[in-house]
Amino acid sequence: MFAVIMAGGKGSRFWPRSREKMPKHLLDIQGERTIIRETVDRIRPLVPPERTLIVTGRSHAAELIRQLPEIPAENILIEPVGRNTAPCIGLAALHIQKRVPDAVMLVLPSDHRIGDEAAFRRVLETAGKTAAGENLLVTIGIRPTGPETGYGYIEQGDLFSTIDGGEIHRVRAIREKPNLEQAREFLLRGGFLWNSGMFVWKASTILSAINRFLPELHEGLQQIREALGTAREEEIVAEVYAAQKAVSIDYGVMEKAEDVLVVPGDFGWSDLGSWDALWEVSGKDENGNAVRGNFVGIDAGDCLVHSPGKFVALVGVRDLLVVETDDALLICRRGRSQDVRKVVEALESKGLKKYL
Amino acid sequence: MFAVIMAGGKGSRFWPRSREKMPKHLLDIQGERTIIRETVDRIRPLVPPERTLIVTGRSHAAELIRQLPEIPAENILIEPVGRNTAPCIGLAALHIQKRVPDAVMLVLPSDHRIGDEAAFRRVLETAGKTAAGENLLVTIGIRPTGPETGYGYIEQGDLFSTIDGGEIHRVRAIREKPNLEQAREFLLRGGFLWNSGMFVWKASTILSAINRFLPELHEGLQQIREALGTAREEEIVAEVYAAQKAVSIDYGVMEKAEDVLVVPGDFGWSDLGSWDALWEVSGKDENGNAVRGNFVGIDAGDCLVHSPGKFVALVGVRDLLVVETDDALLICRRGRSQDVRKVVEALESKGLKKYL
Repeated sequence: MFAVIMAGGKGSRFWPRSREKMPKHLLDIQGERTIIRETVDRIRPLVPPERTLIVTGRSHAAELIRQLPEIPAENILIEPVGRNTAPCIGLAALHIQKRVPDAVMLVLPSDHRIGDEAAFRRVLETAGKTAAGENLLVTIGIRPTGPETGYGYIEQGDLFSTIDGGEIHRVRAIREKPNLEQAREFLLRGGFLWNSGMFVWKASTILSAINRFLPELHEGLQQIREALGTAREEEIVAEVYAAQKAVSIDYGVMEKAEDVLVVPGDFGWSDLGSWDALWEVSGKDENGNAVRGNFVGIDAGDCLVHSPGKFVALVGVRDLLVVETDDALLICRRGRSQDVRKVVEALESKGLKKYL
Repeated sequence: MFAVIMAGGKGSRFWPRSREKMPKHLLDIQGERTIIRETVDRIRPLVPPERTLIVTGRSHAAELIRQLPEIPAENILIEPVGRNTAPCIGLAALHIQKRVPDAVMLVLPSDHRIGDEAAFRRVLETAGKTAAGENLLVTIGIRPTGPETGYGYIEQGDLFSTIDGGEIHRVRAIREKPNLEQAREFLLRGGFLWNSGMFVWKASTILSAINRFLPELHEGLQQIREALGTAREEEIVAEVYAAQKAVSIDYGVMEKAEDVLVVPGDFGWSDLGSWDALWEVSGKDENGNAVRGNFVGIDAGDCLVHSPGKFVALVGVRDLLVVETDDALLICRRGRSQDVRKVVEALESKGLKKYL
């Protein structure tokens, strides 16, 4: 079994800690280790470094290699430009198929939070065994804990099989992000799972599916396949990527394919998509404050304080997200962190590049 | 005319910018110049540096001399310990009387804000002329702009005289800080002025008043007078101060003396006593934000942002005081800045001396 970690994200929602040069997965936002370090460590019992591939952009490769010295250099795949997840997964599938033609690959985002790592690995094992036996696309679904509107949903169908007590279901439909009313209905009806963006399949299976549903991408991948390991590889990859449309594997393949399976999981998952999400999953003191750094609160509660370098005093405030870096400070009402991207947009429009 | 600037304050209410080593008057909290620099510059048209005396503590003298190079070294009077304003004023009066026996002295706090400097100087001139002619204690009162509970009040009595259009009144009573109900009544009744803590009198007049109302202090001052200019001066000052009780000139003299006069003034005065007060007197953008530093606000209003060194983004917040220094960050609800001292107390009790 191989793992492919997709590390192409920019993560401007974690400004001011995430920056163009330092996206979220390269940061230690949640603990002592960086998020991608945690992601690699988490699957280590299932997949050793020599079978862990990481797909990233050129500008982040050096920092990534510095953080993950055990990953062989040939396992760091560079995308010349970002084209969403379908080309990324296709490129990784080519590399894996070249090494082990019938290998199974786990496809994992680089920047998620998993509370129960053992449960997570059991789900991956169940999915891996299923994908090894069938030419089917397997996705990981998360049992919802609330009517979340920030995630896509997977509607699960009949039971397909059971492995070591783990259920595998057929997928009835893959749904885009719902509005709140729809999300509440999903929760009420049951059988809906959050789409985690994690997949398990044989490299050959996903390449076949790309051939069927994204023939232009498949054509490009064939050109890359022929150039792999030659002097022209980098040039061809650049040409192919330049010509591709950005398309997600969900929209491009999963929503169109039949015979998709889902393994439902329950392992304290969050996509850690914002400072609000970080507050939600963080440990808190008796006043509801999630604090990283030295801190005094006088009548202050339900705040996130992320200030590794500076002493912070809060007086008479509630529901604030406070994030401090060497050159910038964000103070955001809790529940409003989706608007942090507006700060990034304002910095862009003002030409304040050094804060981006 | 001499000026005495009392620069003994600690100003912990401006934490984290004010520190034990750097009290408020040595900071450029309001503009480009430090507050004491502004205080000295403001009276310069009336009193030259060689007749401007500054009373301060030993630990702040070096920084003060650095900021005010034009003040002669012999005009910097060092108090070995702080004993409130009465000993401070008595010490300065001794020095002035020694140089010019019948000199008039202006007594000014080091850390106030004055909006209209020309009007301020006109009031000082009126008070100075009055004090030069009479052996009377003259105080400066501020026409109130609201039912402020943070200031003491002066109840003005009959008109005493008029000089160049400026009125001088007798003082009926000096009142301690009122509660809100009393403050509202003062405003309604009229004839009440804020006690600015600024005084004008002859050195000989205030020393006589100290002799009458604070005989122990007068006794100590007599010992110092005999030691002035001798090798034992520093030692005697230390002995006398160690034995004195801390007492304000208001409580010790002004509230007890008859024949006190007041010159009412109207010159945009604030004692700049807190971050809330700074927001009140600061210029604001169209959203009510008073900003020092680089700033982006997304749906943010009525905030103070004091961050000379760091970019600040506010998202979805109102009524916050945000103050950033090299090593600390304060976020305080507007209206709660009197509780900043609780932060300082917490730092003391936790032994976090480096933030004090």
